[in-house]
Amino acid sequence: MPKLEKYHKALDYSYAPGLFPCMEALTKQTKFVSKVLISERIDTKPLQMIQEAIEGTSIRIEKADRVLQTLSGKENCFAAAIFKKHETLLRDDTNHIVLHSISDKGNLGTILRTALGFSFLDIAIIAPACDPFDPQVIRASMGAFFSARVKQFKSFEEYENNHNNRQLYPLMLGGSVHIEEAVKAAIQPFSLIMGNEGSGLPEFFSKKGIALRIPHSNKIDSLNLSIASSIAMYLFSKFNL
Amino acid sequence: MPKLEKYHKALDYSYAPGLFPCMEALTKQTKFVSKVLISERIDTKPLQMIQEAIEGTSIRIEKADRVLQTLSGKENCFAAAIFKKHETLLRDDTNHIVLHSISDKGNLGTILRTALGFSFLDIAIIAPACDPFDPQVIRASMGAFFSARVKQFKSFEEYENNHNNRQLYPLMLGGSVHIEEAVKAAIQPFSLIMGNEGSGLPEFFSKKGIALRIPHSNKIDSLNLSIASSIAMYLFSKFNL
Repeated sequence: MPKLEKYHKALDYSYAPGLFPCMEALTKQTKFVSKVLISERIDTKPLQMIQEAIEGTSIRIEKADRVLQTLSGKENCFAAAIFKKHETLLRDDTNHIVLHSISDKGNLGTILRTALGFSFLDIAIIAPACDPFDPQVIRASMGAFFSARVKQFKSFEEYENNHNNRQLYPLMLGGSVHIEEAVKAAIQPFSLIMGNEGSGLPEFFSKKGIALRIPHSNKIDSLNLSIASSIAMYLFSKFNL
Repeated sequence: MPKLEKYHKALDYSYAPGLFPCMEALTKQTKFVSKVLISERIDTKPLQMIQEAIEGTSIRIEKADRVLQTLSGKENCFAAAIFKKHETLLRDDTNHIVLHSISDKGNLGTILRTALGFSFLDIAIIAPACDPFDPQVIRASMGAFFSARVKQFKSFEEYENNHNNRQLYPLMLGGSVHIEEAVKAAIQPFSLIMGNEGSGLPEFFSKKGIALRIPHSNKIDSLNLSIASSIAMYLFSKFNL
Protein backbone atom coordinates (compact mmCIF):
# COMPACT_ATOMS: atom_id res chain seq x y z
CA MET A 1 0.00 0.00 0.00
CA PRO A 2 1.31 3.47 -0.85
CA LYS A 3 1.78 6.21 1.75
CA LEU A 4 -1.35 6.74 3.84
CA GLU A 5 -3.35 9.81 2.94
CA LYS A 6 -5.69 12.04 4.89
CA TYR A 7 -9.13 10.69 4.12
CA HIS A 8 -10.97 12.07 1.11
CA LYS A 9 -13.84 10.73 -0.90
CA ALA A 10 -11.82 9.56 -3.89
CA LEU A 11 -9.66 7.14 -1.88
CA ASP A 12 -10.48 3.46 -2.29
CA TYR A 13 -9.89 2.85 1.41
CA SER A 14 -11.01 4.51 4.61
CA TYR A 15 -10.29 4.45 8.33
CA ALA A 16 -12.28 3.17 11.30
CA PRO A 17 -10.85 5.34 14.08
CA GLY A 18 -11.20 4.40 17.73
CA LEU A 19 -10.82 1.05 19.42
CA PHE A 20 -14.50 0.13 19.29
CA PRO A 21 -15.02 0.94 15.59
CA CYS A 22 -11.68 -0.73 14.82
CA MET A 23 -12.74 -3.95 16.56
CA GLU A 24 -16.10 -3.86 14.78
CA ALA A 25 -14.29 -3.64 11.44
CA LEU A 26 -11.99 -6.51 12.41
CA THR A 27 -14.77 -8.81 13.59
CA LYS A 28 -17.59 -7.94 11.17
CA GLN A 29 -15.67 -7.22 7.95
CA THR A 30 -12.33 -8.92 8.46
CA LYS A 31 -11.66 -9.52 4.79
CA PHE A 32 -11.84 -5.83 3.92
CA VAL A 33 -9.33 -4.75 6.57
CA SER A 34 -5.76 -4.39 5.34
CA LYS A 35 -4.01 -2.92 8.34
CA VAL A 36 -4.46 -1.73 11.90
CA LEU A 37 -2.77 1.49 12.97
CA ILE A 38 -1.93 1.78 16.64
CA SER A 39 -0.51 4.44 18.91
CA GLU A 40 2.69 4.12 20.91
CA ARG A 41 0.47 4.78 23.91
CA ILE A 42 -2.04 1.95 23.40
CA ASP A 43 -2.66 -0.17 26.52
CA THR A 44 -1.80 -3.84 26.68
CA LYS A 45 -5.37 -5.08 26.85
CA PRO A 46 -6.75 -3.37 23.73
CA LEU A 47 -3.57 -4.35 21.90
CA GLN A 48 -4.19 -7.99 22.85
CA MET A 49 -7.77 -7.75 21.62
CA ILE A 50 -6.52 -6.51 18.26
CA GLN A 51 -3.84 -9.17 18.09
CA GLU A 52 -6.37 -11.91 18.80
CA ALA A 53 -8.76 -10.53 16.19
CA ILE A 54 -6.15 -10.59 13.43
CA GLU A 55 -4.63 -13.95 14.31
CA GLY A 56 -4.42 -16.15 11.23
CA THR A 57 -5.12 -13.26 8.85
CA SER A 58 -2.72 -11.26 6.72
CA ILE A 59 -3.65 -8.04 8.52
CA ARG A 60 -0.62 -6.23 9.91
CA ILE A 61 -0.27 -3.84 12.82
CA GLU A 62 1.66 -0.61 12.36
CA LYS A 63 2.57 2.17 14.75
CA ALA A 64 1.32 5.43 13.23
CA ASP A 65 0.73 8.10 15.84
CA ARG A 66 0.82 10.92 13.34
CA VAL A 67 -1.89 9.45 11.12
CA LEU A 68 -4.05 8.69 14.16
CA GLN A 69 -3.64 12.26 15.32
CA THR A 70 -4.75 13.61 11.95
CA LEU A 71 -7.73 11.29 11.95
CA SER A 72 -9.06 12.16 15.36
CA GLY A 73 -8.26 15.84 15.79
CA LYS A 74 -8.39 16.76 19.44
CA GLU A 75 -9.69 13.45 20.72
CA ASN A 76 -7.50 10.58 21.77
CA CYS A 77 -7.34 7.79 19.26
CA PHE A 78 -5.22 4.73 19.99
CA ALA A 79 -6.18 2.51 17.10
CA ALA A 80 -7.73 2.61 13.65
CA ALA A 81 -8.46 -0.06 11.09
CA ILE A 82 -7.81 0.64 7.43
CA PHE A 83 -10.46 -0.99 5.30
CA LYS A 84 -11.19 -1.25 1.61
CA LYS A 85 -14.31 0.67 0.60
CA HIS A 86 -16.99 -1.49 -0.93
CA GLU A 87 -20.70 -1.35 -1.46
CA THR A 88 -23.24 -3.98 -0.59
CA LEU A 89 -26.59 -4.45 -2.26
CA LEU A 90 -29.57 -3.88 -0.02
CA ARG A 91 -31.81 -6.86 0.60
CA ASP A 92 -35.22 -6.57 -0.95
CA ASP A 93 -37.23 -8.52 1.63
CA THR A 94 -36.30 -6.32 4.59
CA ASN A 95 -37.44 -2.94 5.85
CA HIS A 96 -35.17 -0.09 4.75
CA ILE A 97 -34.06 3.25 6.10
CA VAL A 98 -33.71 5.78 3.29
CA LEU A 99 -31.77 8.97 4.02
CA HIS A 100 -32.37 11.71 1.47
CA SER A 101 -29.77 14.50 1.23
CA ILE A 102 -28.41 13.96 4.72
CA SER A 103 -25.45 16.27 5.21
CA ASP A 104 -24.09 15.94 8.74
CA LYS A 105 -21.55 13.19 9.42
CA GLY A 106 -22.36 12.98 13.12
CA ASN A 107 -26.06 12.63 12.37
CA LEU A 108 -25.45 9.90 9.83
CA GLY A 109 -23.28 7.99 12.30
CA THR A 110 -25.85 8.30 15.08
CA ILE A 111 -28.63 7.17 12.76
CA LEU A 112 -26.60 4.13 11.62
CA ARG A 113 -26.07 3.17 15.24
CA THR A 114 -29.70 3.64 16.21
CA ALA A 115 -30.83 1.76 13.11
CA LEU A 116 -28.70 -1.21 14.17
CA GLY A 117 -30.20 -0.94 17.66
CA PHE A 118 -33.65 -1.27 16.14
CA SER A 119 -32.59 -3.97 13.67
CA PHE A 120 -32.79 -1.95 10.49
CA LEU A 121 -29.83 -3.35 8.58
CA ASP A 122 -30.43 -1.90 5.12
CA ILE A 123 -29.62 1.76 4.66
CA ALA A 124 -29.99 3.72 1.43
CA ILE A 125 -28.17 7.04 1.11
CA ILE A 126 -29.61 9.28 -1.58
CA ALA A 127 -27.26 11.89 -3.14
CA PRO A 128 -26.39 14.67 -2.57
CA ALA A 129 -25.28 13.41 0.82
CA CYS A 130 -22.28 13.18 3.06
CA ASP A 131 -19.93 10.28 2.40
CA PRO A 132 -20.91 7.24 4.50
CA PHE A 133 -17.32 5.96 4.37
CA ASP A 134 -15.97 9.10 6.03
CA PRO A 135 -14.03 8.21 9.22
CA GLN A 136 -16.17 10.69 11.17
CA VAL A 137 -19.31 8.79 10.16
CA ILE A 138 -17.70 5.46 11.08
CA ARG A 139 -16.64 6.82 14.44
CA ALA A 140 -20.01 8.42 15.24
CA SER A 141 -21.67 5.10 14.36
CA MET A 142 -19.40 3.40 16.92
CA GLY A 143 -18.68 0.87 14.22
CA ALA A 144 -22.36 0.08 13.55
CA PHE A 145 -21.46 0.89 9.95
CA PHE A 146 -19.79 -2.54 9.70
CA SER A 147 -22.96 -4.42 10.63
CA ALA A 148 -25.16 -2.61 8.12
CA ARG A 149 -25.67 -2.86 4.41
CA VAL A 150 -25.13 0.71 3.24
CA LYS A 151 -25.69 1.67 -0.38
CA GLN A 152 -25.49 5.03 -2.08
CA PHE A 153 -27.92 6.04 -4.85
CA LYS A 154 -27.61 8.95 -7.26
CA SER A 155 -31.26 9.83 -6.88
CA PHE A 156 -34.45 8.64 -5.25
CA GLU A 157 -35.54 7.48 -8.69
CA GLU A 158 -32.57 5.14 -8.86
CA TYR A 159 -33.49 3.74 -5.44
CA GLU A 160 -37.10 3.25 -6.51
CA ASN A 161 -36.09 1.51 -9.72
CA ASN A 162 -33.98 -0.94 -7.76
CA HIS A 163 -36.44 -1.45 -4.95
CA ASN A 164 -40.04 -1.27 -6.06
CA ASN A 165 -43.07 -2.97 -4.54
CA ARG A 166 -42.44 -1.54 -1.13
CA GLN A 167 -44.57 0.62 1.11
CA LEU A 168 -42.97 4.06 1.35
CA TYR A 169 -43.27 6.07 4.56
CA PRO A 170 -41.72 9.53 4.17
CA LEU A 171 -41.37 11.38 7.45
CA MET A 172 -42.57 14.95 6.88
CA LEU A 173 -43.44 18.00 8.95
CA GLY A 174 -46.85 18.21 7.33
CA GLY A 175 -47.35 14.44 7.10
CA SER A 176 -51.02 13.52 6.82
CA VAL A 177 -50.93 10.39 8.97
CA HIS A 178 -50.01 10.18 12.68
CA ILE A 179 -47.02 7.87 12.87
CA GLU A 180 -48.66 5.55 15.39
CA GLU A 181 -51.70 5.09 13.15
CA ALA A 182 -49.35 4.06 10.35
CA VAL A 183 -47.58 1.59 12.64
CA LYS A 184 -50.91 -0.08 13.44
CA ALA A 185 -51.62 -0.64 9.76
CA ALA A 186 -48.06 -1.09 8.50
CA ILE A 187 -47.44 -2.97 5.29
CA GLN A 188 -44.13 -4.77 4.81
CA PRO A 189 -41.55 -4.58 3.46
CA PHE A 190 -41.43 -0.82 3.97
CA SER A 191 -38.99 2.04 3.61
CA LEU A 192 -38.85 4.78 6.21
CA ILE A 193 -37.63 7.90 4.41
CA MET A 194 -35.99 10.83 6.19
CA GLY A 195 -34.85 14.14 4.69
CA ASN A 196 -32.18 16.78 5.11
CA GLU A 197 -31.37 18.28 8.54
CA GLY A 198 -32.48 21.78 7.57
CA SER A 199 -34.98 21.44 4.77
CA GLY A 200 -36.54 18.02 5.34
CA LEU A 201 -37.93 16.07 2.38
CA PRO A 202 -38.96 17.77 -0.87
CA GLU A 203 -42.71 18.22 -1.21
CA PHE A 204 -43.11 15.53 -3.91
CA PHE A 205 -42.57 12.85 -1.27
CA SER A 206 -46.03 13.54 0.12
CA LYS A 207 -47.36 11.79 -2.99
CA LYS A 208 -44.81 8.98 -2.82
CA GLY A 209 -46.46 6.95 -0.13
CA ILE A 210 -47.97 7.57 3.29
CA ALA A 211 -46.45 10.76 4.70
CA LEU A 212 -45.99 10.42 8.44
CA ARG A 213 -45.92 13.10 11.09
CA ILE A 214 -44.56 12.90 14.62
CA PRO A 215 -46.79 15.26 16.59
CA HIS A 216 -44.98 17.89 18.65
CA SER A 217 -45.87 21.22 20.21
CA ASN A 218 -45.84 24.37 18.13
CA LYS A 219 -43.18 25.81 20.42
CA ILE A 220 -40.47 24.33 18.22
CA ASP A 221 -40.25 24.41 14.43
CA SER A 222 -39.25 20.80 14.07
CA LEU A 223 -37.51 17.95 15.83
CA ASN A 224 -33.82 17.31 15.07
CA LEU A 225 -33.31 14.84 12.27
CA SER A 226 -31.60 12.24 14.44
CA ILE A 227 -34.31 12.59 17.10
CA ALA A 228 -37.21 12.29 14.65
CA SER A 229 -35.53 9.36 12.87
CA SER A 230 -34.96 7.55 16.13
CA ILE A 231 -38.55 7.89 17.27
CA ALA A 232 -39.72 6.60 13.90
CA MET A 233 -37.26 3.69 13.92
CA TYR A 234 -38.26 2.79 17.46
CA LEU A 235 -41.97 2.77 16.64
CA PHE A 236 -41.46 0.66 13.53
CA SER A 237 -38.86 -1.64 15.08
CA LYS A 238 -41.45 -4.19 16.20
CA PHE A 239 -41.64 -5.40 12.60
CA ASN A 240 -37.95 -6.29 12.57
CA LEU A 241 -38.09 -8.90 15.33
CA MET B 1 -21.45 46.65 32.46
CA PRO B 2 -17.71 45.96 32.68
CA LYS B 3 -15.72 44.57 29.75
CA LEU B 4 -17.30 41.46 28.29
CA GLU B 5 -15.57 38.24 29.23
CA LYS B 6 -15.31 34.88 27.56
CA TYR B 7 -18.04 32.80 29.16
CA HIS B 8 -17.20 30.89 32.30
CA LYS B 9 -19.38 29.41 34.99
CA ALA B 10 -18.74 32.07 37.63
CA LEU B 11 -20.07 34.94 35.51
CA ASP B 12 -23.49 36.25 36.48
CA TYR B 13 -24.42 36.68 32.84
CA SER B 14 -24.26 34.50 29.76
CA TYR B 15 -24.70 34.70 26.00
CA ALA B 16 -27.37 33.41 23.66
CA PRO B 17 -25.39 33.12 20.42
CA GLY B 18 -27.09 32.93 17.04
CA LEU B 19 -30.05 34.86 15.69
CA PHE B 20 -32.65 32.29 16.66
CA PRO B 21 -31.50 31.84 20.28
CA CYS B 22 -31.04 35.61 20.55
CA MET B 23 -34.63 36.25 19.42
CA GLU B 24 -35.90 33.60 21.83
CA ALA B 25 -34.13 35.36 24.69
CA LEU B 26 -35.56 38.73 23.60
CA THR B 27 -39.13 37.51 23.28
CA LYS B 28 -39.35 34.96 26.11
CA GLN B 29 -37.13 36.54 28.77
CA THR B 30 -36.93 40.20 27.79
CA LYS B 31 -36.36 41.49 31.29
CA PHE B 32 -33.19 39.44 31.76
CA VAL B 33 -31.54 40.65 28.55
CA SER B 34 -29.17 43.59 28.97
CA LYS B 35 -27.65 43.94 25.55
CA VAL B 36 -27.60 42.51 22.04
CA LEU B 37 -24.28 42.07 20.29
CA ILE B 38 -24.35 42.19 16.53
CA SER B 39 -21.86 41.69 13.74
CA GLU B 40 -20.89 44.30 11.15
CA ARG B 41 -22.08 41.74 8.62
CA ILE B 42 -25.61 41.22 9.94
CA ASP B 43 -28.34 41.48 7.27
CA THR B 44 -31.01 44.15 7.32
CA LYS B 45 -33.89 41.81 8.04
CA PRO B 46 -32.54 40.10 11.18
CA LEU B 47 -31.37 43.51 12.40
CA GLN B 48 -34.92 44.84 12.00
CA MET B 49 -36.29 41.86 13.92
CA ILE B 50 -33.95 42.61 16.79
CA GLN B 51 -34.77 46.32 16.71
CA GLU B 52 -38.49 45.60 16.85
CA ALA B 53 -38.04 43.15 19.71
CA ILE B 54 -36.20 45.67 21.87
CA GLU B 55 -38.42 48.65 21.08
CA GLY B 56 -39.53 50.35 24.28
CA THR B 57 -36.97 48.47 26.42
CA SER B 58 -33.64 49.65 27.79
CA ILE B 59 -31.79 46.95 25.87
CA ARG B 60 -29.00 48.34 23.71
CA ILE B 61 -27.41 47.03 20.53
CA GLU B 62 -23.65 46.96 20.23
CA LYS B 63 -21.33 45.95 17.42
CA ALA B 64 -18.94 43.34 18.77
CA ASP B 65 -17.55 41.10 16.05
CA ARG B 66 -14.63 39.97 18.15
CA VAL B 67 -16.81 38.73 21.02
CA LEU B 68 -19.15 36.99 18.58
CA GLN B 69 -16.17 35.30 16.98
CA THR B 70 -14.94 34.02 20.33
CA LEU B 71 -18.42 32.77 21.20
CA SER B 72 -19.05 30.83 18.06
CA GLY B 73 -15.64 29.44 17.11
CA LYS B 74 -15.68 28.42 13.47
CA GLU B 75 -19.36 28.97 12.85
CA ASN B 76 -20.84 32.23 11.68
CA CYS B 77 -22.61 34.15 14.40
CA PHE B 78 -24.21 37.50 13.59
CA ALA B 79 -25.99 38.22 16.85
CA ALA B 80 -26.00 37.25 20.52
CA ALA B 81 -28.10 38.35 23.46
CA ILE B 82 -26.43 38.94 26.81
CA PHE B 83 -28.71 37.83 29.61
CA LYS B 84 -28.56 37.76 33.36
CA LYS B 85 -28.34 34.25 34.77
CA HIS B 86 -31.20 33.33 37.06
CA GLU B 87 -32.87 30.21 38.29
CA THR B 88 -36.54 29.42 38.24
CA LEU B 89 -38.31 27.06 40.60
CA LEU B 90 -39.81 24.02 38.95
CA ARG B 91 -43.55 23.66 39.13
CA ASP B 92 -44.74 20.83 41.30
CA ASP B 93 -47.90 19.91 39.42
CA THR B 94 -46.20 19.18 36.10
CA ASN B 95 -44.21 16.27 34.73
CA HIS B 96 -40.45 16.75 35.02
CA ILE B 97 -37.36 15.75 33.10
CA VAL B 98 -34.51 14.99 35.50
CA LEU B 99 -31.00 14.82 34.03
CA HIS B 100 -28.50 13.13 36.33
CA SER B 101 -24.79 13.83 35.72
CA ILE B 102 -25.25 14.86 32.13
CA SER B 103 -21.92 16.05 30.79
CA ASP B 104 -22.22 16.96 27.12
CA LYS B 105 -23.36 20.49 26.24
CA GLY B 106 -24.68 19.51 22.84
CA ASN B 107 -26.71 16.68 24.36
CA LEU B 108 -28.17 18.94 27.00
CA GLY B 109 -29.16 21.51 24.38
CA THR B 110 -30.77 18.88 22.17
CA ILE B 111 -32.67 17.43 25.10
CA LEU B 112 -33.95 20.88 26.12
CA ARG B 113 -35.20 21.45 22.62
CA THR B 114 -36.85 18.04 22.34
CA ALA B 115 -38.38 18.46 25.81
CA LEU B 116 -40.00 21.71 24.67
CA GLY B 117 -41.24 19.93 21.55
CA PHE B 118 -42.97 17.38 23.76
CA SER B 119 -44.19 20.01 26.25
CA PHE B 120 -41.96 19.11 29.16
CA LEU B 121 -41.22 22.56 30.57
CA ASP B 122 -39.63 21.66 33.92
CA ILE B 123 -36.06 20.42 33.77
CA ALA B 124 -33.97 19.41 36.78
CA ILE B 125 -30.18 19.18 36.34
CA ILE B 126 -28.49 17.09 39.02
CA ALA B 127 -24.81 17.82 39.74
CA PRO B 128 -22.17 17.00 38.71
CA ALA B 129 -23.33 18.22 35.34
CA CYS B 130 -22.46 20.60 32.57
CA ASP B 131 -23.55 24.19 33.07
CA PRO B 132 -27.02 24.77 31.56
CA PHE B 133 -26.23 28.48 31.11
CA ASP B 134 -23.25 27.74 28.88
CA PRO B 135 -23.65 29.47 25.48
CA GLN B 136 -23.05 26.14 23.74
CA VAL B 137 -26.04 24.65 25.56
CA ILE B 138 -28.19 27.67 24.71
CA ARG B 139 -27.18 27.45 21.09
CA ALA B 140 -27.72 23.68 20.81
CA SER B 141 -31.16 24.16 22.37
CA MET B 142 -31.95 26.71 19.61
CA GLY B 143 -33.15 28.97 22.38
CA ALA B 144 -35.56 26.39 23.86
CA PHE B 145 -33.70 27.11 27.09
CA PHE B 146 -35.66 30.38 27.38
CA SER B 147 -39.04 28.63 27.32
CA ALA B 148 -38.15 26.11 30.00
CA ARG B 149 -37.86 26.24 33.75
CA VAL B 150 -34.36 24.90 34.37
CA LYS B 151 -33.12 24.32 37.90
CA GLN B 152 -29.85 22.86 39.14
CA PHE B 153 -29.71 20.61 42.21
CA LYS B 154 -26.62 19.59 44.16
CA SER B 155 -27.81 16.00 44.44
CA PHE B 156 -30.75 13.80 43.64
CA GLU B 157 -31.59 13.88 47.32
CA GLU B 158 -32.02 17.64 47.16
CA TYR B 159 -34.33 17.25 44.17
CA GLU B 160 -36.37 14.61 46.00
CA ASN B 161 -36.66 16.75 49.11
CA ASN B 162 -38.02 19.60 47.05
CA HIS B 163 -40.28 17.52 44.86
CA ASN B 164 -41.73 14.53 46.64
CA ASN B 165 -45.00 12.75 45.96
CA ARG B 166 -44.17 12.11 42.37
CA GLN B 167 -43.91 8.93 40.38
CA LEU B 168 -40.27 8.39 39.43
CA TYR B 169 -39.39 6.71 36.14
CA PRO B 170 -35.63 6.19 35.84
CA LEU B 171 -34.56 5.11 32.36
CA MET B 172 -32.07 2.26 32.77
CA LEU B 173 -30.37 -0.32 30.58
CA GLY B 174 -31.61 -3.12 32.82
CA GLY B 175 -34.98 -1.50 33.57
CA SER B 176 -37.56 -4.05 34.69
CA VAL B 177 -40.56 -2.53 32.92
CA HIS B 178 -41.01 -2.06 29.16
CA ILE B 179 -41.47 1.65 28.63
CA GLU B 180 -44.75 1.24 26.77
CA GLU B 181 -46.23 -0.81 29.61
CA ALA B 182 -45.34 2.03 31.97
CA VAL B 183 -46.97 4.58 29.67
CA LYS B 184 -50.22 2.60 29.75
CA ALA B 185 -50.31 2.72 33.54
CA ALA B 186 -48.60 6.08 34.08
CA ILE B 187 -49.22 7.97 37.30
CA GLN B 188 -48.94 11.78 37.31
CA PRO B 189 -47.19 13.98 38.08
CA PHE B 190 -44.10 11.99 37.14
CA SER B 191 -40.39 12.54 36.66
CA LEU B 192 -38.54 10.89 33.79
CA ILE B 193 -34.95 10.44 34.95
CA MET B 194 -32.01 10.04 32.57
CA GLY B 195 -28.38 9.38 33.43
CA ASN B 196 -24.90 10.16 32.19
CA GLU B 197 -23.92 9.65 28.52
CA GLY B 198 -21.37 6.97 29.31
CA SER B 199 -22.36 5.36 32.56
CA GLY B 200 -26.12 5.81 32.69
CA LEU B 201 -27.87 6.04 36.07
CA PRO B 202 -26.31 4.63 39.26
CA GLU B 203 -27.78 1.29 40.29
CA PHE B 204 -29.69 2.68 43.30
CA PHE B 205 -32.18 4.29 40.93
CA SER B 206 -33.66 0.87 40.19
CA LYS B 207 -35.17 1.04 43.68
CA LYS B 208 -36.25 4.68 43.31
CA GLY B 209 -39.34 4.10 41.24
CA ILE B 210 -40.26 2.12 38.16
CA ALA B 211 -37.12 1.50 36.14
CA LEU B 212 -37.93 1.65 32.43
CA ARG B 213 -36.18 -0.02 29.53
CA ILE B 214 -36.36 0.81 25.86
CA PRO B 215 -35.92 -2.53 24.14
CA HIS B 216 -33.22 -2.66 21.46
CA SER B 217 -31.21 -5.37 19.74
CA ASN B 218 -28.13 -6.80 21.42
CA LYS B 219 -26.03 -5.60 18.50
CA ILE B 220 -25.45 -2.29 20.25
CA ASP B 221 -24.50 -1.73 23.89
CA SER B 222 -26.95 1.08 24.44
CA LEU B 223 -28.80 3.87 22.70
CA ASN B 224 -27.30 7.37 22.76
CA LEU B 225 -28.54 9.45 25.67
CA SER B 226 -30.27 12.04 23.50
CA ILE B 227 -31.89 9.29 21.42
CA ALA B 228 -33.15 7.29 24.41
CA SER B 229 -34.37 10.46 26.13
CA SER B 230 -36.26 11.55 23.05
CA ILE B 231 -38.02 8.23 22.63
CA ALA B 232 -39.03 8.33 26.29
CA MET B 233 -40.22 11.95 26.10
CA TYR B 234 -42.19 11.20 22.95
CA LEU B 235 -43.93 8.20 24.50
CA PHE B 236 -44.81 10.10 27.68
CA SER B 237 -45.71 13.34 25.89
CA LYS B 238 -49.40 12.42 25.60
CA PHE B 239 -49.77 13.30 29.28
CA ASN B 240 -48.62 16.88 28.67
CA LEU B 241 -51.42 17.84 26.31
